[in-house]
Amino acid sequence: MDDVSGSCMAMRGNKQLRCAEPLIVEEIVVDPLKAYEIRLKIVCTSLCHSDITFWRAKATTVFPRILGHEAYGVVESVGEHVEGFAAGDTVVTTFLGQCDQCPGCASEHNNLCTTAPFVFGPGMRRDGTTRFRDAQGNPLHDLVAVSSFAEYTVVDVTQVVKIDPAVPPKLACLLSLRRQHRGGSCMEGGQGGTRLISGHLRAGVRWVSGKSFGVTHFVNPSQLGNSSVPEEIAKLTGGGADYSFECIGVSSVMTDAFTSTKPGKGKTIILGLEKDNKPISLPSLDLLSGKCVMGSYFGGLKPKTDVPILARKCMNKELELDGLVTHEVGLQEINTAFDLLLQGKSLRCIIWMDK
Amino acid sequence: MDDVSGSCMAMRGNKQLRCAEPLIVEEIVVDPLKAYEIRLKIVCTSLCHSDITFWRAKATTVFPRILGHEAYGVVESVGEHVEGFAAGDTVVTTFLGQCDQCPGCASEHNNLCTTAPFVFGPGMRRDGTTRFRDAQGNPLHDLVAVSSFAEYTVVDVTQVVKIDPAVPPKLACLLSLRRQHRGGSCMEGGQGGTRLISGHLRAGVRWVSGKSFGVTHFVNPSQLGNSSVPEEIAKLTGGGADYSFECIGVSSVMTDAFTSTKPGKGKTIILGLEKDNKPISLPSLDLLSGKCVMGSYFGGLKPKTDVPILARKCMNKELELDGLVTHEVGLQEINTAFDLLLQGKSLRCIIWMDK
Repeated sequence: MDDVSGSCMAMRGNKQLRCAEPLIVEEIVVDPLKAYEIRLKIVCTSLCHSDITFWRAKATTVFPRILGHEAYGVVESVGEHVEGFAAGDTVVTTFLGQCDQCPGCASEHNNLCTTAPFVFGPGMRRDGTTRFRDAQGNPLHDLVAVSSFAEYTVVDVTQVVKIDPAVPPKLACLLSLRRQHRGGSCMEGGQGGTRLISGHLRAGVRWVSGKSFGVTHFVNPSQLGNSSVPEEIAKLTGGGADYSFECIGVSSVMTDAFTSTKPGKGKTIILGLEKDNKPISLPSLDLLSGKCVMGSYFGGLKPKTDVPILARKCMNKELELDGLVTHEVGLQEINTAFDLLLQGKSLRCIIWMDK
Repeated sequence: MDDVSGSCMAMRGNKQLRCAEPLIVEEIVVDPLKAYEIRLKIVCTSLCHSDITFWRAKATTVFPRILGHEAYGVVESVGEHVEGFAAGDTVVTTFLGQCDQCPGCASEHNNLCTTAPFVFGPGMRRDGTTRFRDAQGNPLHDLVAVSSFAEYTVVDVTQVVKIDPAVPPKLACLLSLRRQHRGGSCMEGGQGGTRLISGHLRAGVRWVSGKSFGVTHFVNPSQLGNSSVPEEIAKLTGGGADYSFECIGVSSVMTDAFTSTKPGKGKTIILGLEKDNKPISLPSLDLLSGKCVMGSYFGGLKPKTDVPILARKCMNKELELDGLVTHEVGLQEINTAFDLLLQGKSLRCIIWMDK
């Protein structure tokens, strides 16, 4: 239970709460474990747009902060009362917890654990303390109680899922992300097996190349002239998509995704964390036509129940994740990973701790 | 198939498209039937808040116009190609059509007929013509192709449902309204059979009296002090309502209804026609927690399939409609009906043609 020192990402130059500055790598101290906690040696972690959202968000972000939440690692030690984990176990972290004892975990229709509720802020553990300090002993904030842009981290037992070591680490860490995750606004027309994807270049999203991920049609907003994305989707699907997924967290894209669905039965699924915490605006008449909008964290999955299922699907190729990994860098190059995503050049960039 | 003259409501003093002026009763001419149409002698009709919405709406309303859409009547004559109806049949009108042949009618998940699509404007029949003229021969606009504030009207066969003559007329005409229809924002907590209702006095809605309609709790926004309706609902239900219904068509109430539902699984059902056609605004983070919002016209029912079922439920007291009828007036007193609803004094006011 000794302190562990390790190179970690912490945002500095932000003592005055300035955000969106380049990250720096520095030595930090990771505090000893408390009860119900697990200390992990991170093997690799991937950069998600939500990390960028928290990095940029002036209103909701606290600094200095260690970002990162999609991670694969090895259990280094376990705290009191931790059952089912031992040093050496391979695991992934999840931003949602699962205690399996609260009403949320007991419900079939709910994946919000109330024992370890999902919290954005204030960037400390649920008890208000932190496990990270800089070399001078000043506290560092965390991100969604994970903070995986670090060689070591400490995570609540409810947010750690054991994973088959046969799963390649760089794919395993992607199991931490939401199930439906595509660049842009993804829509499927159910009839005739049509699948199509609409990207939003203005949001800096790179096109998925070729016909990967079952994509059959592209709609490129910059090439539509006077037409809109919803109008184009309506043409392609005979009146609107049956299902529409918004995954990038832009309020106007959420509205477009909704408007693109079929009157009478279209379903819109919101998975993106709105980058400026803006509300979603829906034309009320359009909603009355029988449309439905729903949202979920983590694709509605229960982490401990469903991530192992996803891992098996990944191993037997039912779930194709390889194509999502477009770049790989070492921890020292983390700002390159940010640049690639900001410029719309990457889908998922893996950050390796040992590179 | 001769012309039929009858006293009808038409909004006048509005040659310059001025809205929200008192209605006047005057002699009009009802044109002969076209194919697939039915001419009805209206027995009674009820005043719905949607009539007021169209009466007040500057942007979407055309005048002069005959309002009214919830009606009970008797078939006076039928046009060419009309099957299944004969003079003397007792019927109700519906603002949604059902042809039973289009993809919408064939779908289990959809109640939007594409043969007779629901149209707000421009206040003419779908072919752009009208069946109503004033004494000088000037055309009068209709409302949702029904226009029941009249002694006679002409309605497409898809929008007429035959009804058991044993159902009392003043209850039968209420079967034209949406299934879930209460004053205010109605919420139900599923666990423990809790049912409660939250009214919005500021929207001019009268309290449902006593414990009628299975109501167990009231939330009165004007008596909450610093607390909000969603906060109060959260206290009463242990974290939020499982289901929330918005029935009055006010954008801010739609948002409150949504915010009042339980994180993780709350469902909000929008049934009200937004009075100013404003969009509904939803906090995106709240949606991500696993909430769902859906809307429907006519409670998602298929008129010809489901209204007869509702009529049977009404007859055997499974569906209690009597309590909704708070006032009854004659056609000449129609402005009284408007005043009562505008002042929040009535739930449903029945307008009788023979009084």
